[in-house]
Amino acid sequence: MERRNRGSETPKIPNQANAIKLPPLHLPAQANQCHQSNSISISLPASAPGISIGEAIKLLFGDNAGSAAIDEQPNQPSDSTTSNSGPAKLGMFHSKSIPAGSSYGKTAAVGKFNGPFEDQQRLPRSYSSRDKRFDSFKTWSGRLERQLSNLRGKPQEPDVEANESDIMEIEAVPAVERYFDALEGPELDTLRASEVSVLPEDQKWPFLLRFPISAFGMCLGVSSQAILWKTLATSPSMSFLHVNLTVNLVLWCISLAVIGTVSLIYSLKIIFYFEAVRREYYHPVRINFFFAPWIAGLFLALGVPPSVAVNLHAALWYVLMAPIFCLELKIYGQWMSGGQRRLSKVANPSNHLSIVGNFVGALLGASMGLKEGPIFFFAVGLAHYTVLFVTLYQRLPTTETLPRELHPVFFLFVAAPSVACVAWAKIRGDFDYGPRIAYFIAMFLYASLAVRINFFRGFRFSLAWWAYTFPMTSASVATISYSVAVTNILTRSFSVGLSAIATFTVTALLVSTIIHAFILHDLFPNDVSIAITQKRLKFSKKLAHLRSANSDMKETEGSLPKNSPELEL
Amino acid sequence: MERRNRGSETPKIPNQANAIKLPPLHLPAQANQCHQSNSISISLPASAPGISIGEAIKLLFGDNAGSAAIDEQPNQPSDSTTSNSGPAKLGMFHSKSIPAGSSYGKTAAVGKFNGPFEDQQRLPRSYSSRDKRFDSFKTWSGRLERQLSNLRGKPQEPDVEANESDIMEIEAVPAVERYFDALEGPELDTLRASEVSVLPEDQKWPFLLRFPISAFGMCLGVSSQAILWKTLATSPSMSFLHVNLTVNLVLWCISLAVIGTVSLIYSLKIIFYFEAVRREYYHPVRINFFFAPWIAGLFLALGVPPSVAVNLHAALWYVLMAPIFCLELKIYGQWMSGGQRRLSKVANPSNHLSIVGNFVGALLGASMGLKEGPIFFFAVGLAHYTVLFVTLYQRLPTTETLPRELHPVFFLFVAAPSVACVAWAKIRGDFDYGPRIAYFIAMFLYASLAVRINFFRGFRFSLAWWAYTFPMTSASVATISYSVAVTNILTRSFSVGLSAIATFTVTALLVSTIIHAFILHDLFPNDVSIAITQKRLKFSKKLAHLRSANSDMKETEGSLPKNSPELEL
Amino acid sequence: MERRNRGSETPKIPNQANAIKLPPLHLPAQANQCHQSNSISISLPASAPGISIGEAIKLLFGDNAGSAAIDEQPNQPSDSTTSNSGPAKLGMFHSKSIPAGSSYGKTAAVGKFNGPFEDQQRLPRSYSSRDKRFDSFKTWSGRLERQLSNLRGKPQEPDVEANESDIMEIEAVPAVERYFDALEGPELDTLRASEVSVLPEDQKWPFLLRFPISAFGMCLGVSSQAILWKTLATSPSMSFLHVNLTVNLVLWCISLAVIGTVSLIYSLKIIFYFEAVRREYYHPVRINFFFAPWIAGLFLALGVPPSVAVNLHAALWYVLMAPIFCLELKIYGQWMSGGQRRLSKVANPSNHLSIVGNFVGALLGASMGLKEGPIFFFAVGLAHYTVLFVTLYQRLPTTETLPRELHPVFFLFVAAPSVACVAWAKIRGDFDYGPRIAYFIAMFLYASLAVRINFFRGFRFSLAWWAYTFPMTSASVATISYSVAVTNILTRSFSVGLSAIATFTVTALLVSTIIHAFILHDLFPNDVSIAITQKRLKFSKKLAHLRSANSDMKETEGSLPKNSPELEL
Repeated sequence: MERRNRGSETPKIPNQANAIKLPPLHLPAQANQCHQSNSISISLPASAPGISIGEAIKLLFGDNAGSAAIDEQPNQPSDSTTSNSGPAKLGMFHSKSIPAGSSYGKTAAVGKFNGPFEDQQRLPRSYSSRDKRFDSFKTWSGRLERQLSNLRGKPQEPDVEANESDIMEIEAVPAVERYFDALEGPELDTLRASEVSVLPEDQKWPFLLRFPISAFGMCLGVSSQAILWKTLATSPSMSFLHVNLTVNLVLWCISLAVIGTVSLIYSLKIIFYFEAVRREYYHPVRINFFFAPWIAGLFLALGVPPSVAVNLHAALWYVLMAPIFCLELKIYGQWMSGGQRRLSKVANPSNHLSIVGNFVGALLGASMGLKEGPIFFFAVGLAHYTVLFVTLYQRLPTTETLPRELHPVFFLFVAAPSVACVAWAKIRGDFDYGPRIAYFIAMFLYASLAVRINFFRGFRFSLAWWAYTFPMTSASVATISYSVAVTNILTRSFSVGLSAIATFTVTALLVSTIIHAFILHDLFPNDVSIAITQKRLKFSKKLAHLRSANSDMKETEGSLPKNSPELEL
Repeated sequence: MERRNRGSETPKIPNQANAIKLPPLHLPAQANQCHQSNSISISLPASAPGISIGEAIKLLFGDNAGSAAIDEQPNQPSDSTTSNSGPAKLGMFHSKSIPAGSSYGKTAAVGKFNGPFEDQQRLPRSYSSRDKRFDSFKTWSGRLERQLSNLRGKPQEPDVEANESDIMEIEAVPAVERYFDALEGPELDTLRASEVSVLPEDQKWPFLLRFPISAFGMCLGVSSQAILWKTLATSPSMSFLHVNLTVNLVLWCISLAVIGTVSLIYSLKIIFYFEAVRREYYHPVRINFFFAPWIAGLFLALGVPPSVAVNLHAALWYVLMAPIFCLELKIYGQWMSGGQRRLSKVANPSNHLSIVGNFVGALLGASMGLKEGPIFFFAVGLAHYTVLFVTLYQRLPTTETLPRELHPVFFLFVAAPSVACVAWAKIRGDFDYGPRIAYFIAMFLYASLAVRINFFRGFRFSLAWWAYTFPMTSASVATISYSVAVTNILTRSFSVGLSAIATFTVTALLVSTIIHAFILHDLFPNDVSIAITQKRLKFSKKLAHLRSANSDMKETEGSLPKNSPELEL
Repeated sequence: MERRNRGSETPKIPNQANAIKLPPLHLPAQANQCHQSNSISISLPASAPGISIGEAIKLLFGDNAGSAAIDEQPNQPSDSTTSNSGPAKLGMFHSKSIPAGSSYGKTAAVGKFNGPFEDQQRLPRSYSSRDKRFDSFKTWSGRLERQLSNLRGKPQEPDVEANESDIMEIEAVPAVERYFDALEGPELDTLRASEVSVLPEDQKWPFLLRFPISAFGMCLGVSSQAILWKTLATSPSMSFLHVNLTVNLVLWCISLAVIGTVSLIYSLKIIFYFEAVRREYYHPVRINFFFAPWIAGLFLALGVPPSVAVNLHAALWYVLMAPIFCLELKIYGQWMSGGQRRLSKVANPSNHLSIVGNFVGALLGASMGLKEGPIFFFAVGLAHYTVLFVTLYQRLPTTETLPRELHPVFFLFVAAPSVACVAWAKIRGDFDYGPRIAYFIAMFLYASLAVRINFFRGFRFSLAWWAYTFPMTSASVATISYSVAVTNILTRSFSVGLSAIATFTVTALLVSTIIHAFILHDLFPNDVSIAITQKRLKFSKKLAHLRSANSDMKETEGSLPKNSPELEL
C-alpha cells in the first residue's frame, strides 16, 4: 500500500532516501506499530550512521527495496568534470572535491558547486555511492555515468526504461492548481504543513537546485540604480547636485558583473537541472521572473555610461526584445485562452514583471531612435497593463495567490506606470499630457503604498525583494524626467527625496543580502516551491477525509440518542 | 403525473407527436412497465406506421388525449400559398408540393421552402393531417387555417384559449441559464446528452427553422473581401500590385446578392417563425449575430466600387446606425443592469460582434465626411470594448460559455482593434499614435492566435465561421492603411501576406460551404439551440438526484460496520 | 441563556430597554411560555405605562436586571448644556427642555435637538431617569454626567470598567460582510427580516442619530444647479436664452445655506455620536458619501457668482482637495489591498461618488489656472474610473450589493464621464477628441438609462436621491460645453432639453423633500443601517440551522422506510 503511493509520486529509479523521508502513510489501524519503525529511519543521524541505509530499508520494506538500494553502481559522478571547466575562468567558484571515508550516499552530487555565498558545512561525499534523490531533477540523471561505465564495459539493461520514465517525467509537471494547493506565502515559496516535498527537506540541496530564477531580481535592482545615477548626472534639472558620471560607471560595472554571474549560474541550472527550471517556469509567481533576465539586459543597455558607449546598435534591441516577445505570446495567450492558467486565477502583483518589459523595451528603443518597434511594445504593454491593473485592483475572489498582507511585491504596481511615463515621453519627444497621466498614476500608487506603514513588517527576506525595489528607482527616474519638464523647487526636492529613498532601499537590501550570504549562510534556502509532489498524496487526502468524516460523525453522535452504539468508525 | 410534466414544457395545443418524442417521465416505481409502452411509440417507424398515431396515444394516455389528437381538422396548410408568392421572383426556391398517400402527420409544414443547398430526401406529406409539431414556433400556427375553416363555416370554440396560450408562450422564453445548461460547444449549438429537444430530433425541420441568424456571417466574410480588394486597388503603397478595381466590383456584386438573399430568407423566418427568431435573440451567442446584418450593410457601403457610387448620401449612415444604436442600448444595458444577462455571465468572444459595429460605423461615417456621429460611435465602442476586452482576457470563472479550446471565434479579438485603428485614422485624418496603438494591439493578438497551431483542428464547420474570418480581412485592411503611413518593404510584404491569408481563408470557406451545401447537404442542420425546453425536465433532475444519493449511500455503507442494518434508504 | 446572547451584542452598561426590544431568543422548547411574557413588555404603551419598566424587567429577568435599571442615578443630562450653545446662533433649532412627571426612561436624550423637518410628537422626558439605550453610540455616554456627579460628590467605582468597554466598543465595528448580511435595498438601508437592531426600533431615535451622511446629497443637488445656471448664463451658445446671473446668485446662496446647515448638523453628530459616524464610515454604500461634503464645496467654488468673486484663491483648492486625497488613499487602497473591503466585493454604483471628486477637483483647479494639480487628480480619477467602470459593467457575481432593479443610483454612471469631459476640456483649453469621447460615453449611458422607463417606480424616497440627480446636471453642463464647441440647433436644443430635465428633477425632489419634511414628518427615519448587530445573533443562526435540518430530516424521512424510528433529532 505504502509503496504504491510513493511510486506514483516518484516514478523514477528506486529512491530509498526519499522513501524514508516521507511521513508515515498508513491507515490509522496500522499507524501505531509502523510509526515506530519509521521514526527509526527519520532519526538516523546524518553524520555518523550506525547502520547502513540499505539495511534500514531492508528492515522497513523488505529485500526488494533494499537490494535495489544496494545494487547501485559506484559510478564516477561525472558532473564534476563538466562543472569544473565552466566556472573556472570566472575564478569565483571553488570546486574542491572532498574524498571521505563515509560509506553512505547523502552527498550533494553537484554540491561542490557552491557559490561564494555558501554554507561551508558540507557532508562528506564518496565516489562509491552517489546520492540519487536529486536525479529526477537532473537533465542527464544517469546518462553521463552510463556513458562512462559503458567505456568501462559494464552492461546496461535498465537503460531504456529509465529513458522512458525520463520522458514521462518531463511530460508531467504539477498542474497550476497544485502550486496553489501545495504552497503558501506571498511568493508561493513555502510548503504547506500538509504537503510533502519530493526532495529531502532535512538537508541542503545542491546549490544549483537552490538557485532560483528570482535571483535575477538582484540584477534588476542594481542595474536600475545605474540608470538612476546616470539620469541624476545628466538631467538639467538635477545639475545643481553635481553628480559625477563615475557613480553610474561603477554601478554599471557592478551590474554587468552581477548579471553575468547570475546568468552563468542559471545557465548551468538550465543545463544540469532542466526539470527544476521547468518547474519554476510553471510556477505561477516564478514564471514572471523569466522576464527578469531580459529586462535586466534592457536596464544595462539603458544605463550604459557615456564613456562606454554613446550609441548602441539597434540590433541589441531586437536581440533583447525577441525573447520578451516570445514569452509574452506564450503567457498572455495563456491568460486569455488557457483553461488552467487563466488570468482570473493566476493574477498576482508579480505579473507586473511580465508587463513592464514592454515599457522598458519601448523606452530603450525610443532612446535608440527607433520608431515603430517602441510603439508596438508600448501598445502591447498598454493593453495588457489595463487588463492586469483592473484585475489586480478588483481582487477577484478567484485569484488564489494575492497575499492578504501588504508586501514588497505590491511596489510593482508603481513600476509599470513609471516606466510607461518615461517611455511615452521619449516616444513623443515631449513630457505632455500622456506621460503626465502615467506619472501621476504612479505617484498616487506610490503614496497609496507608502502610507501603509506595516509594510516591511514580519516578512522573511528573499532574493525576490530585489525585484520589488526597482519600481522605486523607476519612480525616481520618472520624477526626474518630470522635474525636467516642470522645474521648480518642489519637483527638484521630490526627485532628490525619491532618489534617496530608492538608493537607501537598495543599499539596505545589499547589506541584507551580504549578511544572509556570508554571515547567516541562508541566502539560498532549499527552494521547496519546485519540489512539490505532482498530485496531492492520495493518502493524506484520505486521511483528511477520514478526519473530517470522524468529526462529522461525532457531531452526529452528539445529536443522536445514546442507544445507537454501533455507529462508530 | 406525466401529462402535467409535459404540459409545463409545451403548454400549447394538445400536441401528441411531441408527447411521444419526450422520454419517459415517470417515477422509478412506474418506470418499468411504462418504459416499455413508451418505447413502442418511439420505435414507431416514421415512414410506414402500422398503427395510427391516434391509436397509439389512446393506448398510452387514454381516450381524452386520443380524441384530441383525432379531432384534428384536415386543414389546408395555408403557408404554401404565402410562401409560394414570396420567393418566386428570386427564382432560387422551388416550391413543389408533393401530394402523398401517407396518412400521418410527420411532414415538414414549411418544408417545401427548401433552399438551393437543400437535402432533397423529403418525407411525403398529405393535406389530410398536418404536422403540428412545429406549430409552437410558427407565427400564425393555426390562424390562417382557422380563417380558412371559418370560411368553410366550421365552429371554433377553442380559439380564445389558443390565443391566450399563444401570448403566454410568447412571454416565456427559456432563461439564459437554460441555454448554458442545455447547450454546449463554442457556439452553444449542440444539445447536451441529458437534454431533450422540443422539436423532433430524428427528422429534418422546415428550412426556415434551420436557417440561423449566423448565416449573416457569410455576408460579413464576402463583403469585407470587397473592401479589402478596394483598398488593395486604391492604396498608394499597394500600387505596385496593380490590382484592378474590377475585383472589387465583382466581389461587391456577389456581396450584394448574398446579403439580399440571406436578408430575404431571414425576413421570411421572422414572418413565419417569429418564436424561433425570439429564441435566437435570447441565445447568449446568437444575440450578437443580430448585429451582423447591419455590419454587413456598413461593409457594403464601405466597399462600394467607385464605378457604382463615389459619394454616398449621409442618410444611409443614419439608416444603418439606428438599429445598431438600438441594439446596443438594449444589450449593453443588459450587461450592466440585467440580472440574468449580466456581462460576467454571458461574456464570450462573439460579443465582439456587438462592439465592432461601432467602429465600422465610425469608419463609414468618417469616410462620408461626418464628424460628430463617428466620434460618438467610436467613443461608445471604446468604452465598451475596454470592458469586454478586460472581461474576456480575465476569463472569469463565472462566464459559462468561453470554450476551453481555441476556436475561430477567438479571431474576433483581432477585429475590433483593427477596425478601430482604421476608423480613428480616418477620423483624425492621420495615422498617428492612436491608430498605431490600436493597430499594434491587433497585430499582437493576431500573432498570439496564429502561433497556436491547433487552431482549426477538430471543429465542425458551421456558417458562423464566416463571421470569424472577417477579422482577418480587417487586419489586412489595417495593415494596408499602416503601410500607407509607413511605406517600406516590410510593411508592404506584410500587407500582401495578410491579404493573401485572408483571401485564402475566405476561399477555403467558400469551398467548404459549397461542399456542405451541394455535396454533403448538411449546411443547415437542425438548429437545436433554439429547441431547448424551457425548464429542465423535472424528472431527469430527480433521477440525477436519486442517482447521486444512491452512490453517496453506497460510500457511506462501505465505511460503516456491517452490523448496522437499520441505516438504509 | 438569553442574557448571555444579549451581552455579546451590547457589551455596555446594563441596558434594560434594549433587552426588552430584542425578540424572544429561546430554544423552541421554551418559546411558548416566554414569548407571552415578552410580548407584555413589547406591547407596553410608550406614553402611559401602567407599570414601571423596572418592575417589568424584574418580572422578566429577575432582581439583578431590575435593580440595575432602578439604580440609575438621576443625572443632569449634560448634552443639553452643550447643544444649547451650539445651534443657538443659527436660530433654526429650538432646544426646549420639557420637564415631565413620567417616571420611566424612554426619552430621547438628545431628542430635543430636533431639526426643522422634525416630527413634533415627542415623548415626555424626565431628569430622574435618562434613556441609556443610545449610550453605546454616544461619544461621551456618561462622562459628563459622571463629571457632574463628581462635583456633587458621588462615588464612582464602575468608571474604569465603563471606559474599558467604551474602548472595546470603539475597536469593534461590524465587519463589512455583516452590512451585506444584515441589510438590504439598493442603498443598504433596510434591515433584513431576520435581523435585530441594536437600537430601539419602535421609537424615533435622537435626531442626530437619524441624520445620515447622505444628507450631503442635497448639497450636491442644489449646488450643481447653481453651476448649471451660471453656465447657462455665461455660455455663448446659450446666449439666446438670456438667462440672468441672478438665478445663479440665488441658487448659490441657497446652496451655501444648505451646505452650512448640513455641515453643522453633521459636525454635531460627529461630536456627540461618533460611534454612529464610524458605523456610517464602515458602511459599504455610505462610505462613498463621505466624499460628498468636499464635492459640494468644490461645486460651491465652481458655481460662485461673478458678483461674489471672480478669482478664487488657489489655497481654497488645496484645502478642498486635501481631504479628498486622503479619503482616496484610504479607500482605493482598501479596494486593492484590503481583504474584506476588496473592490470585487464592495463595488456598487455609489462608488462613483468616490471617483467623481477627482474630476470635479480637476475642473475647479483648471478653472483657477492651476496646471499640475488638476492633471494629477484627473489621472488618478481616470485610472480608478476605468477600474470601477469595468467592474460595475461586469456585474461580478461576488459584488453583493448591486441592486437588481434600476434605481436612481445608476445615474451616477453619467456623472464621472460628464465631469471628466468638462474637466479635460478645461485642462486642454479645447473641446477636442478627448472631451468628446468622454462626453459621448456619458450621453450613451444617459440614453441607456433613460430608455429604461421603469426607473422611478416603486422606490422609497430618500435623501440619497439628491446625490443621484447631480449627474443629470453634470450632463447638462457638459452638453452646454459641447454646444459651445459645436454650435447648431441640435446641440442647443439638446442643452435646453437636458437642462430642463435636470432642473425639473431637482425641483421635484425639492417638493418631495419639503413634503416629507413638513407634511409627512418622515424625512429622517430611523437609520437602521448603523444599528446592525456586530455579529449575527448566534441563536437565530441556530434556529435557521434547526429549521433547515428539520426540513431535511422530513425529506429524508419521506424516503426512508417507516421502520427506522430511532433516526430522529
